[in-house]
Amino acid sequence: MDKKQQDQLKKEAATKAAEIVKPGSVLGVGTGSTVAFFIDALGQRKEKEGFTLKHIVTTSNRSKKQLEGLGFKVDELADIDQVDLTVDGADRVADNLDGIKGGGGALTLEKNVAINSKKIIWIVDESKLVHRLGGFPLPVEVLPISCEQNFRKFEQEGLKPQWRKDENGKRYVTHYGNYIIDLAADPVPAPHGLADYLDHTVGVVEHGLFLDMCDEVIIAHSDGSIEDKRK
Amino acid sequence: MDKKQQDQLKKEAATKAAEIVKPGSVLGVGTGSTVAFFIDALGQRKEKEGFTLKHIVTTSNRSKKQLEGLGFKVDELADIDQVDLTVDGADRVADNLDGIKGGGGALTLEKNVAINSKKIIWIVDESKLVHRLGGFPLPVEVLPISCEQNFRKFEQEGLKPQWRKDENGKRYVTHYGNYIIDLAADPVPAPHGLADYLDHTVGVVEHGLFLDMCDEVIIAHSDGSIEDKRK
Repeated sequence: MDKKQQDQLKKEAATKAAEIVKPGSVLGVGTGSTVAFFIDALGQRKEKEGFTLKHIVTTSNRSKKQLEGLGFKVDELADIDQVDLTVDGADRVADNLDGIKGGGGALTLEKNVAINSKKIIWIVDESKLVHRLGGFPLPVEVLPISCEQNFRKFEQEGLKPQWRKDENGKRYVTHYGNYIIDLAADPVPAPHGLADYLDHTVGVVEHGLFLDMCDEVIIAHSDGSIEDKRK
Repeated sequence: MDKKQQDQLKKEAATKAAEIVKPGSVLGVGTGSTVAFFIDALGQRKEKEGFTLKHIVTTSNRSKKQLEGLGFKVDELADIDQVDLTVDGADRVADNLDGIKGGGGALTLEKNVAINSKKIIWIVDESKLVHRLGGFPLPVEVLPISCEQNFRKFEQEGLKPQWRKDENGKRYVTHYGNYIIDLAADPVPAPHGLADYLDHTVGVVEHGLFLDMCDEVIIAHSDGSIEDKRK
Protein backbone atom coordinates (compact mmCIF):
# COMPACT_ATOMS: atom_id res chain seq x y z
CA MET A 1 0.00 0.00 0.00
CA ASP A 2 1.42 3.42 -0.89
CA LYS A 3 1.25 6.49 1.34
CA LYS A 4 -1.72 7.92 -0.52
CA GLN A 5 -3.78 4.78 0.06
CA GLN A 6 -2.65 4.64 3.69
CA ASP A 7 -3.62 8.27 4.25
CA GLN A 8 -7.00 7.58 2.68
CA LEU A 9 -7.53 4.74 5.18
CA LYS A 10 -6.44 6.86 8.13
CA LYS A 11 -8.81 9.56 6.95
CA GLU A 12 -11.73 7.12 6.88
CA ALA A 13 -10.95 5.90 10.42
CA ALA A 14 -10.59 9.51 11.60
CA THR A 15 -13.90 10.52 10.02
CA LYS A 16 -15.62 7.60 11.75
CA ALA A 17 -14.23 8.82 15.10
CA ALA A 18 -15.30 12.40 14.40
CA GLU A 19 -18.87 11.22 13.84
CA ILE A 20 -18.98 9.80 17.37
CA VAL A 21 -18.25 13.19 18.99
CA LYS A 22 -21.41 14.66 20.55
CA PRO A 23 -22.14 18.37 20.02
CA GLY A 24 -21.84 20.35 23.24
CA SER A 25 -19.55 17.79 24.86
CA VAL A 26 -16.07 18.17 26.38
CA LEU A 27 -13.50 16.67 24.00
CA GLY A 28 -9.89 15.60 24.54
CA VAL A 29 -7.72 15.53 21.42
CA GLY A 30 -4.42 13.66 21.19
CA THR A 31 -1.63 13.87 18.64
CA GLY A 32 -0.35 12.03 15.57
CA SER A 33 -0.95 11.72 11.85
CA THR A 34 -4.34 10.01 12.21
CA VAL A 35 -5.45 12.47 14.88
CA ALA A 36 -4.57 15.28 12.45
CA PHE A 37 -7.13 13.79 10.02
CA PHE A 38 -9.59 13.55 12.94
CA ILE A 39 -9.19 17.27 13.61
CA ASP A 40 -9.79 18.01 9.93
CA ALA A 41 -12.97 15.93 10.07
CA LEU A 42 -14.10 17.84 13.17
CA GLY A 43 -13.56 21.07 11.28
CA GLN A 44 -15.76 19.79 8.45
CA ARG A 45 -18.54 18.88 10.89
CA LYS A 46 -18.22 22.37 12.35
CA GLU A 47 -18.60 23.94 8.90
CA LYS A 48 -21.43 21.70 7.70
CA GLU A 49 -23.50 21.29 10.87
CA GLY A 50 -22.52 24.40 12.84
CA PHE A 51 -21.29 21.82 15.34
CA THR A 52 -19.85 23.28 18.59
CA LEU A 53 -18.18 21.79 21.65
CA LYS A 54 -18.35 22.88 25.28
CA HIS A 55 -14.60 22.57 25.79
CA ILE A 56 -11.60 21.08 24.00
CA VAL A 57 -8.31 20.10 25.62
CA THR A 58 -5.30 18.71 23.75
CA THR A 59 -2.08 16.86 24.52
CA SER A 60 0.15 18.81 22.13
CA ASN A 61 0.81 22.25 20.70
CA ARG A 62 0.53 20.83 17.20
CA SER A 63 -3.05 19.70 17.73
CA LYS A 64 -3.82 22.93 19.57
CA LYS A 65 -2.68 25.04 16.62
CA GLN A 66 -4.58 22.91 14.12
CA LEU A 67 -7.77 23.17 16.20
CA GLU A 68 -7.41 26.91 16.68
CA GLY A 69 -6.79 27.28 12.95
CA LEU A 70 -10.23 25.72 12.41
CA GLY A 71 -11.83 28.17 14.83
CA PHE A 72 -12.05 25.92 17.90
CA LYS A 73 -11.15 27.41 21.30
CA VAL A 74 -8.74 25.20 23.27
CA ASP A 75 -8.81 25.09 27.10
CA GLU A 76 -6.47 23.76 29.77
CA LEU A 77 -7.39 20.51 31.52
CA ALA A 78 -7.06 22.27 34.90
CA ASP A 79 -9.80 24.74 33.87
CA ILE A 80 -12.46 22.14 33.18
CA ASP A 81 -14.08 19.40 35.23
CA GLN A 82 -13.95 16.17 33.25
CA VAL A 83 -13.49 15.21 29.61
CA ASP A 84 -16.44 13.35 28.05
CA LEU A 85 -14.45 11.72 25.26
CA THR A 86 -10.76 11.67 24.33
CA VAL A 87 -9.65 10.66 20.84
CA ASP A 88 -5.98 9.80 20.52
CA GLY A 89 -3.54 7.50 18.76
CA ALA A 90 -1.48 4.72 20.36
CA ASP A 91 1.89 3.13 19.63
CA ARG A 92 0.70 -0.41 20.30
CA VAL A 93 -2.73 -1.84 21.15
CA ALA A 94 -3.18 -5.34 22.55
CA ASP A 95 -6.18 -7.63 22.04
CA ASN A 96 -7.63 -6.50 25.38
CA LEU A 97 -7.29 -2.80 24.35
CA ASP A 98 -4.41 -2.12 26.72
CA GLY A 99 -1.86 0.11 25.04
CA ILE A 100 1.63 1.56 24.95
CA LYS A 101 1.82 5.31 24.38
CA GLY A 102 4.54 7.93 24.59
CA GLY A 103 6.52 7.34 21.39
CA GLY A 104 6.16 11.09 20.83
CA GLY A 105 7.37 11.89 24.36
CA ALA A 106 4.12 13.39 25.69
CA LEU A 107 3.05 10.39 27.81
CA THR A 108 2.58 12.37 31.03
CA LEU A 109 0.32 14.92 29.36
CA GLU A 110 -1.54 12.13 27.54
CA LYS A 111 -2.09 10.06 30.65
CA ASN A 112 -3.33 13.02 32.67
CA VAL A 113 -5.91 13.77 29.99
CA ALA A 114 -6.80 10.06 29.63
CA ILE A 115 -7.31 9.45 33.35
CA ASN A 116 -9.74 12.37 33.48
CA SER A 117 -11.78 11.20 30.47
CA LYS A 118 -15.06 9.31 30.77
CA LYS A 119 -14.49 7.57 27.44
CA ILE A 120 -11.38 6.95 25.35
CA ILE A 121 -11.19 6.09 21.67
CA TRP A 122 -7.90 5.33 19.93
CA ILE A 123 -7.53 5.55 16.15
CA VAL A 124 -4.73 3.37 14.79
CA ASP A 125 -3.67 1.61 11.63
CA GLU A 126 -3.30 -2.15 11.60
CA SER A 127 0.48 -2.01 12.14
CA LYS A 128 -0.09 -0.97 15.78
CA LEU A 129 -2.00 -4.13 16.70
CA VAL A 130 -0.37 -6.81 18.85
CA HIS A 131 -1.84 -9.79 20.67
CA ARG A 132 -0.14 -8.84 23.91
CA LEU A 133 1.76 -5.65 24.68
CA GLY A 134 5.19 -5.49 23.06
CA GLY A 135 6.91 -4.67 19.81
CA PHE A 136 7.56 -1.13 20.96
CA PRO A 137 9.83 0.17 23.75
CA LEU A 138 7.90 1.27 26.84
CA PRO A 139 8.62 4.96 27.66
CA VAL A 140 9.19 5.94 31.29
CA GLU A 141 9.51 9.64 32.20
CA VAL A 142 12.05 10.09 35.02
CA LEU A 143 13.23 13.02 37.14
CA PRO A 144 16.86 13.91 36.30
CA ILE A 145 17.86 13.85 40.00
CA SER A 146 17.75 10.06 40.35
CA CYS A 147 17.72 9.05 36.66
CA GLU A 148 21.08 7.24 36.77
CA GLN A 149 20.03 5.20 39.80
CA ASN A 150 16.73 4.33 38.14
CA PHE A 151 18.44 3.42 34.86
CA ARG A 152 20.68 0.95 36.73
CA LYS A 153 17.72 -0.38 38.70
CA PHE A 154 15.83 -1.06 35.46
CA GLU A 155 18.93 -2.79 34.07
CA GLN A 156 19.11 -5.03 37.13
CA GLU A 157 15.41 -5.84 36.78
CA GLY A 158 16.04 -7.06 33.21
CA LEU A 159 13.96 -4.28 31.65
CA LYS A 160 16.61 -3.33 29.04
CA PRO A 161 16.57 0.44 29.56
CA GLN A 162 17.71 2.81 26.82
CA TRP A 163 17.98 6.58 27.00
CA ARG A 164 15.63 8.36 24.60
CA LYS A 165 17.81 10.65 22.47
CA ASP A 166 16.94 13.79 20.51
CA GLU A 167 17.99 14.54 16.92
CA ASN A 168 21.39 15.76 18.19
CA GLY A 169 22.11 12.53 20.05
CA LYS A 170 21.57 14.21 23.42
CA ARG A 171 19.12 12.97 26.02
CA TYR A 172 15.58 13.88 25.02
CA VAL A 173 14.05 16.42 27.43
CA THR A 174 10.28 16.29 28.03
CA HIS A 175 7.80 19.14 28.37
CA TYR A 176 8.41 18.88 32.14
CA GLY A 177 12.21 19.02 31.93
CA ASN A 178 12.62 15.29 32.59
CA TYR A 179 14.27 12.43 30.68
CA ILE A 180 12.71 9.38 29.05
CA ILE A 181 14.04 5.89 29.59
CA ASP A 182 12.65 3.45 27.01
CA LEU A 183 12.32 -0.09 28.35
CA ALA A 184 13.09 -2.49 25.50
CA ALA A 185 12.11 -5.71 27.33
CA ASP A 186 9.81 -7.29 24.75
CA PRO A 187 7.10 -8.39 25.13
CA VAL A 188 6.26 -6.13 28.11
CA PRO A 189 6.64 -8.49 31.09
CA ALA A 190 3.41 -8.75 33.13
CA PRO A 191 2.05 -5.28 32.22
CA HIS A 192 -0.10 -4.78 35.36
CA GLY A 193 2.74 -5.87 37.62
CA LEU A 194 5.22 -3.67 35.78
CA ALA A 195 2.87 -0.67 35.95
CA ASP A 196 2.55 -1.21 39.70
CA TYR A 197 6.36 -1.43 40.06
CA LEU A 198 6.84 1.77 38.04
CA ASP A 199 4.10 3.63 39.95
CA HIS A 200 5.97 2.84 43.18
CA THR A 201 9.42 3.77 41.83
CA VAL A 202 10.53 7.09 43.32
CA GLY A 203 11.75 9.40 40.54
CA VAL A 204 9.34 8.00 37.93
CA VAL A 205 6.91 10.74 36.90
CA GLU A 206 4.81 8.60 34.55
CA HIS A 207 5.04 5.60 32.25
CA GLY A 208 3.54 4.69 28.89
CA LEU A 209 1.41 1.74 30.00
CA PHE A 210 -2.23 2.70 29.43
CA LEU A 211 -4.06 -0.23 31.02
CA ASP A 212 -7.83 -0.61 31.47
CA MET A 213 -8.32 2.85 30.00
CA CYS A 214 -9.30 2.54 26.35
CA ASP A 215 -12.97 1.80 25.54
CA GLU A 216 -12.91 1.60 21.77
CA VAL A 217 -10.34 1.31 18.99
CA ILE A 218 -11.00 2.31 15.41
CA ILE A 219 -8.63 0.36 13.19
CA ALA A 220 -7.66 1.13 9.59
CA HIS A 221 -6.84 -2.28 8.08
CA SER A 222 -4.50 -2.65 5.13
CA ASP A 223 -7.25 -4.46 3.17
CA GLY A 224 -9.18 -1.19 3.17
CA SER A 225 -11.67 -2.09 5.89
CA ILE A 226 -12.32 -0.03 9.01
CA GLU A 227 -12.84 -2.03 12.20
CA ASP A 228 -14.53 -0.69 15.32
CA LYS A 229 -13.40 -2.75 18.30
CA ARG A 230 -14.97 -2.28 21.70
CA LYS A 231 -14.18 -3.62 25.11
CA MET B 1 12.38 25.84 77.65
CA ASP B 2 13.64 28.96 75.88
CA LYS B 3 15.11 29.04 72.37
CA LYS B 4 18.67 29.04 73.67
CA GLN B 5 18.09 25.86 75.66
CA GLN B 6 16.27 24.30 72.70
CA ASP B 7 19.13 25.16 70.35
CA GLN B 8 21.58 23.65 72.82
CA LEU B 9 19.60 20.41 72.76
CA LYS B 10 19.37 20.37 68.97
CA LYS B 11 23.12 20.94 68.85
CA GLU B 12 23.77 17.94 71.09
CA ALA B 13 21.55 15.70 68.97
CA ALA B 14 23.24 17.00 65.80
CA THR B 15 26.73 16.38 67.23
CA LYS B 16 25.73 12.82 68.09
CA ALA B 17 24.64 12.28 64.49
CA ALA B 18 27.85 13.83 63.12
CA GLU B 19 29.89 11.33 65.17
CA ILE B 20 28.19 8.44 63.35
CA VAL B 21 29.38 9.63 59.91
CA LYS B 22 32.24 7.45 58.64
CA PRO B 23 35.25 9.15 57.00
CA GLY B 24 35.49 8.40 53.27
CA SER B 25 31.77 7.59 53.00
CA VAL B 26 29.06 9.04 50.75
CA LEU B 27 26.81 11.32 52.82
CA GLY B 28 23.33 12.72 52.14
CA VAL B 29 22.46 15.91 54.01
CA GLY B 30 18.90 17.17 54.48
CA THR B 31 17.61 20.55 55.59
CA GLY B 32 16.27 22.28 58.69
CA SER B 33 17.45 23.97 61.87
CA THR B 34 18.78 20.78 63.47
CA VAL B 35 20.49 19.71 60.25
CA ALA B 36 22.21 23.13 60.19
CA PHE B 37 23.77 22.24 63.57
CA PHE B 38 24.70 18.84 62.13
CA ILE B 39 26.58 20.53 59.27
CA ASP B 40 28.41 22.73 61.79
CA ALA B 41 29.42 19.63 63.73
CA LEU B 42 30.67 18.02 60.51
CA GLY B 43 32.79 21.12 59.88
CA GLN B 44 34.31 20.79 63.35
CA ARG B 45 35.20 17.14 62.73
CA LYS B 46 36.78 18.21 59.45
CA GLU B 47 38.88 20.83 61.22
CA LYS B 48 39.88 18.65 64.19
CA GLU B 49 40.34 15.28 62.53
CA GLY B 50 41.10 16.23 58.92
CA PHE B 51 37.94 14.22 58.27
CA THR B 52 36.99 13.90 54.57
CA LEU B 53 34.05 12.35 52.72
CA LYS B 54 33.96 10.62 49.35
CA HIS B 55 30.86 12.51 48.19
CA ILE B 56 28.16 14.71 49.69
CA VAL B 57 24.70 15.31 48.22
CA THR B 58 22.08 17.61 49.72
CA THR B 59 18.35 18.24 49.44
CA SER B 60 18.52 22.05 49.53
CA ASN B 61 20.53 25.03 48.37
CA ARG B 62 20.73 26.25 51.98
CA SER B 63 22.54 23.12 53.15
CA LYS B 64 24.67 23.15 50.01
CA LYS B 65 25.86 26.70 50.70
CA GLN B 66 26.57 25.94 54.36
CA LEU B 67 28.58 22.82 53.42
CA GLU B 68 30.54 24.63 50.73
CA GLY B 69 31.25 27.45 53.19
CA LEU B 70 32.95 24.83 55.39
CA GLY B 71 35.07 23.59 52.48
CA PHE B 72 33.03 20.50 51.54
CA LYS B 73 32.46 19.79 47.84
CA VAL B 74 28.82 19.00 47.08
CA ASP B 75 27.87 16.61 44.24
CA GLU B 76 24.65 15.81 42.42
CA LEU B 77 22.84 12.56 43.26
CA ALA B 78 22.86 11.63 39.54
CA ASP B 79 26.69 11.77 39.54
CA ILE B 80 27.19 9.19 42.28
CA ASP B 81 26.16 5.58 42.78
CA GLN B 82 24.53 5.24 46.17
CA VAL B 83 24.49 7.23 49.41
CA ASP B 84 25.88 5.38 52.45
CA LEU B 85 24.08 7.49 55.06
CA THR B 86 21.56 10.33 54.86
CA VAL B 87 20.97 12.61 57.84
CA ASP B 88 17.80 14.66 57.66
CA GLY B 89 15.01 16.10 59.79
CA ALA B 90 11.34 15.05 59.71
CA ASP B 91 8.04 16.79 60.37
CA ARG B 92 6.54 13.86 62.28
CA VAL B 93 7.96 10.52 63.34
CA ALA B 94 5.75 7.64 64.49
CA ASP B 95 6.66 4.92 67.02
CA ASN B 96 7.63 2.57 64.15
CA LEU B 97 9.94 5.27 62.65
CA ASP B 98 7.65 5.98 59.71
CA GLY B 99 7.57 9.70 59.00
CA ILE B 100 5.92 12.66 57.33
CA LYS B 101 8.26 14.99 55.48
CA GLY B 102 7.84 17.89 53.08
CA GLY B 103 6.81 20.75 55.36
CA GLY B 104 9.58 22.73 53.65
CA GLY B 105 8.30 21.78 50.18
CA ALA B 106 11.32 19.69 49.08
CA LEU B 107 9.70 16.27 49.54
CA THR B 108 10.49 15.04 46.01
CA LEU B 109 14.17 15.88 46.30
CA GLU B 110 14.24 14.43 49.83
CA LYS B 111 12.58 11.18 48.85
CA ASN B 112 14.85 10.68 45.84
CA VAL B 113 17.91 11.04 48.09
CA ALA B 114 16.32 8.84 50.79
CA ILE B 115 15.39 5.98 48.46
CA ASN B 116 18.98 5.85 47.22
CA SER B 117 20.51 5.78 50.73
CA LYS B 118 21.67 2.61 52.47
CA LYS B 119 20.99 4.09 55.90
CA ILE B 120 18.80 6.98 57.07
CA ILE B 121 19.04 8.88 60.34
CA TRP B 122 16.57 11.60 61.28
CA ILE B 123 17.36 14.21 63.93
CA VAL B 124 14.27 15.69 65.57
CA ASP B 125 13.17 17.36 68.74
CA GLU B 126 10.56 15.74 70.95
CA SER B 127 7.72 17.83 69.47
CA LYS B 128 7.89 15.83 66.24
CA LEU B 129 7.10 12.50 67.91
CA VAL B 130 3.68 10.90 67.49
CA HIS B 131 2.45 7.40 68.25
CA ARG B 132 0.98 6.97 64.81
CA LEU B 133 1.38 9.30 61.84
CA GLY B 134 -0.65 12.49 62.09
CA GLY B 135 -0.60 15.92 63.67
CA PHE B 136 0.84 17.41 60.49
CA PRO B 137 -0.71 17.82 57.04
CA LEU B 138 0.63 15.32 54.51
CA PRO B 139 2.20 17.11 51.51
CA VAL B 140 1.50 15.80 48.01
CA GLU B 141 3.34 17.31 45.02
CA VAL B 142 1.06 17.43 41.98
CA LEU B 143 1.49 18.37 38.31
CA PRO B 144 -0.42 21.59 37.51
CA ILE B 145 -2.13 19.99 34.48
CA SER B 146 -4.50 17.81 36.51
CA CYS B 147 -4.19 19.46 39.92
CA GLU B 148 -7.82 20.60 40.09
CA GLN B 149 -9.08 17.12 39.25
CA ASN B 150 -6.78 15.59 41.87
CA PHE B 151 -7.80 18.16 44.49
CA ARG B 152 -11.45 17.22 43.97
CA LYS B 153 -10.57 13.52 43.99
CA PHE B 154 -8.83 13.93 47.35
CA GLU B 155 -11.85 15.82 48.66
CA GLN B 156 -14.16 12.99 47.62
CA GLU B 157 -11.83 10.49 49.30
CA GLY B 158 -12.16 12.40 52.60
CA LEU B 159 -8.50 13.43 52.66
CA LYS B 160 -9.23 17.12 53.42
CA PRO B 161 -6.98 18.68 50.77
CA GLN B 162 -5.65 22.22 51.15
CA TRP B 163 -3.52 24.18 48.69
CA ARG B 164 -0.08 25.03 50.02
CA LYS B 165 0.28 28.82 49.75
CA ASP B 166 3.38 31.02 49.59
CA GLU B 167 3.94 34.22 51.61
CA ASN B 168 1.89 36.20 49.05
CA GLY B 169 -1.11 33.91 49.38
CA LYS B 170 -0.51 32.39 45.95
CA ARG B 171 -0.12 28.68 45.32
CA TYR B 172 3.31 27.53 46.44
CA VAL B 173 5.43 26.39 43.46
CA THR B 174 7.99 23.62 44.03
CA HIS B 175 11.53 23.30 42.67
CA TYR B 176 9.98 21.28 39.82
CA GLY B 177 7.30 23.84 38.94
CA ASN B 178 4.49 21.85 40.58
CA TYR B 179 1.95 22.59 43.32
CA ILE B 180 1.61 21.06 46.78
CA ILE B 181 -1.71 19.83 48.12
CA ASP B 182 -1.57 19.27 51.89
CA LEU B 183 -3.87 16.49 53.07
CA ALA B 184 -5.23 17.46 56.48
CA ALA B 185 -6.96 14.14 57.26
CA ASP B 186 -5.63 13.47 60.75
CA PRO B 187 -4.37 10.98 61.78
CA VAL B 188 -3.09 9.82 58.38
CA PRO B 189 -5.60 7.09 57.41
CA ALA B 190 -3.88 3.71 56.83
CA PRO B 191 -0.48 5.14 55.80
CA HIS B 192 0.64 2.19 53.66
CA GLY B 193 -2.68 2.05 51.85
CA LEU B 194 -2.70 5.81 51.34
CA ALA B 195 0.89 5.74 49.99
CA ASP B 196 -0.16 3.03 47.54
CA TYR B 197 -3.19 5.09 46.45
CA LEU B 198 -1.05 8.20 45.94
CA ASP B 199 1.67 6.27 44.06
CA HIS B 200 -1.01 5.12 41.62
CA THR B 201 -2.65 8.53 41.22
CA VAL B 202 -1.77 9.99 37.82
CA GLY B 203 -0.53 13.59 38.26
CA VAL B 204 1.02 12.93 41.68
CA VAL B 205 4.79 13.41 41.43
CA GLU B 206 5.59 12.45 45.02
CA HIS B 207 4.11 12.45 48.52
CA GLY B 208 5.48 13.06 51.99
CA LEU B 209 4.93 9.58 53.45
CA PHE B 210 8.37 8.13 54.21
CA LEU B 211 7.50 4.57 55.20
CA ASP B 212 9.94 1.74 56.05
CA MET B 213 12.83 4.06 55.23
CA CYS B 214 14.27 5.48 58.44
CA ASP B 215 16.71 3.29 60.41
CA GLU B 216 17.47 5.51 63.39
CA VAL B 217 16.08 8.64 65.02
CA ILE B 218 18.09 10.88 67.31
CA ILE B 219 15.66 12.73 69.55
CA ALA B 220 16.34 15.87 71.58
CA HIS B 221 13.98 15.59 74.56
CA SER B 222 12.75 18.63 76.43
CA ASP B 223 14.15 17.19 79.70
CA GLY B 224 17.62 17.62 78.22
CA SER B 225 18.20 13.99 77.33
CA ILE B 226 19.19 12.73 73.89
CA GLU B 227 17.55 9.49 72.82
CA ASP B 228 18.86 7.23 70.05
CA LYS B 229 16.00 5.13 68.76
CA ARG B 230 16.59 2.34 66.25
CA LYS B 231 14.39 0.11 64.23
